[in-house]
Amino acid sequence: MNFGILIFPDVEELDFIGPWEVIGMWRKYAGGPENCFIVAQSLSPVSCAKGLIVHPHASFEQCPPLDFLLIPGGEGTRQEVDNKVLIDFISDQAKSCKAVLSVCTGSFLLHRAGLLSGKKATTHWGSLESLRALGDVIVVEERFISDGKIWSAAGISAGIDATLAFIARYTNEQTAGIVQFAAEYYPSAKLYGVLHKNAKAPSYIKRKAEQINPANPV
Amino acid sequence: MNFGILIFPDVEELDFIGPWEVIGMWRKYAGGPENCFIVAQSLSPVSCAKGLIVHPHASFEQCPPLDFLLIPGGEGTRQEVDNKVLIDFISDQAKSCKAVLSVCTGSFLLHRAGLLSGKKATTHWGSLESLRALGDVIVVEERFISDGKIWSAAGISAGIDATLAFIARYTNEQTAGIVQFAAEYYPSAKLYGVLHKNAKAPSYIKRKAEQINPANPV
Repeated sequence: MNFGILIFPDVEELDFIGPWEVIGMWRKYAGGPENCFIVAQSLSPVSCAKGLIVHPHASFEQCPPLDFLLIPGGEGTRQEVDNKVLIDFISDQAKSCKAVLSVCTGSFLLHRAGLLSGKKATTHWGSLESLRALGDVIVVEERFISDGKIWSAAGISAGIDATLAFIARYTNEQTAGIVQFAAEYYPSAKLYGVLHKNAKAPSYIKRKAEQINPANPV
Repeated sequence: MNFGILIFPDVEELDFIGPWEVIGMWRKYAGGPENCFIVAQSLSPVSCAKGLIVHPHASFEQCPPLDFLLIPGGEGTRQEVDNKVLIDFISDQAKSCKAVLSVCTGSFLLHRAGLLSGKKATTHWGSLESLRALGDVIVVEERFISDGKIWSAAGISAGIDATLAFIARYTNEQTAGIVQFAAEYYPSAKLYGVLHKNAKAPSYIKRKAEQINPANPV
């Protein structure tokens, strides 16, 4: 099994390294895909949105057929939606993938590759309106959503939750539990400040804020 | 202001890239340190625990005096505790740092650098016994803990929570809220499987599991 994670200039770091860690734990401790690698248009080092420099493991040309493909977001997606080579790579690989996942504004690359038309999907809160404006996507304000073999996560850190849920769906809850425990992913529910109450916050955040007793966050 | 993030061979990816993303958002949107960079013994690419290859921005020799230093963990710490050059780098830089943070088994590097003796600290659940066995650390089973200017986080993903809490403490809750919203860090509280109930789970996880109504996770 081959799990490919696509990167490109100005990709957002946590968008892809959150899922990378989760898949890495699945592979190491719980029977996940034999191969998980970072794929980019060429083997040149990629400078990410916050300045991290990452070496891809495979170029598009070298990349074997993928069973799973994850497409992160970040500022770079504004350029990459017009990169025919990258969009063709996504649409070609997606044909035989068992699942394709996007994180954050990676959903705009999925859309350009023809994979979101008529599908439920989400993105970073700051891009929900732009995703709606595309006209043919059923935009939901959830932390992540799956529609057939297409999964999409909200902004940045949401890729971790989506990848764990994907593993649970693809295998079972016990396997996802092994991964969660290995990565010690029992995050704080602390809400800082008040931005989770503002008009731009997606409904899943507002719902979460209402459910948490601020005096006693779990 | 200089925020340095130390890496070394077989460092765990999410241990340092979770905090990297959080600090990056602080810098971009909320007045955080002007400079945040990855520092390693040399400028050679570093192969991380799950196979990601990262280019450091600065070698120990090039590294300016740091205001903040974050030390991740991972398999590589087993080697690095005996790397005098790296341990000396930590202890030398720590003298003038406003705060030093560890994630996961990075706490063992802090200890070797003489920074944890008599201090409250934590680490990945799988290494709590080893941290206790050192004899001079007050080991706590929390998601993260601060003791004076020394902060330590539990395993891997806990570095995100510790870094947000550090920003809130160093600035204010509103600033941490801007960072949380930018990174859309409103994680799922879903617990998969049953490992959070087993004997090795630290007390903060067991407490969390008891507080969450499994039928209605926030």
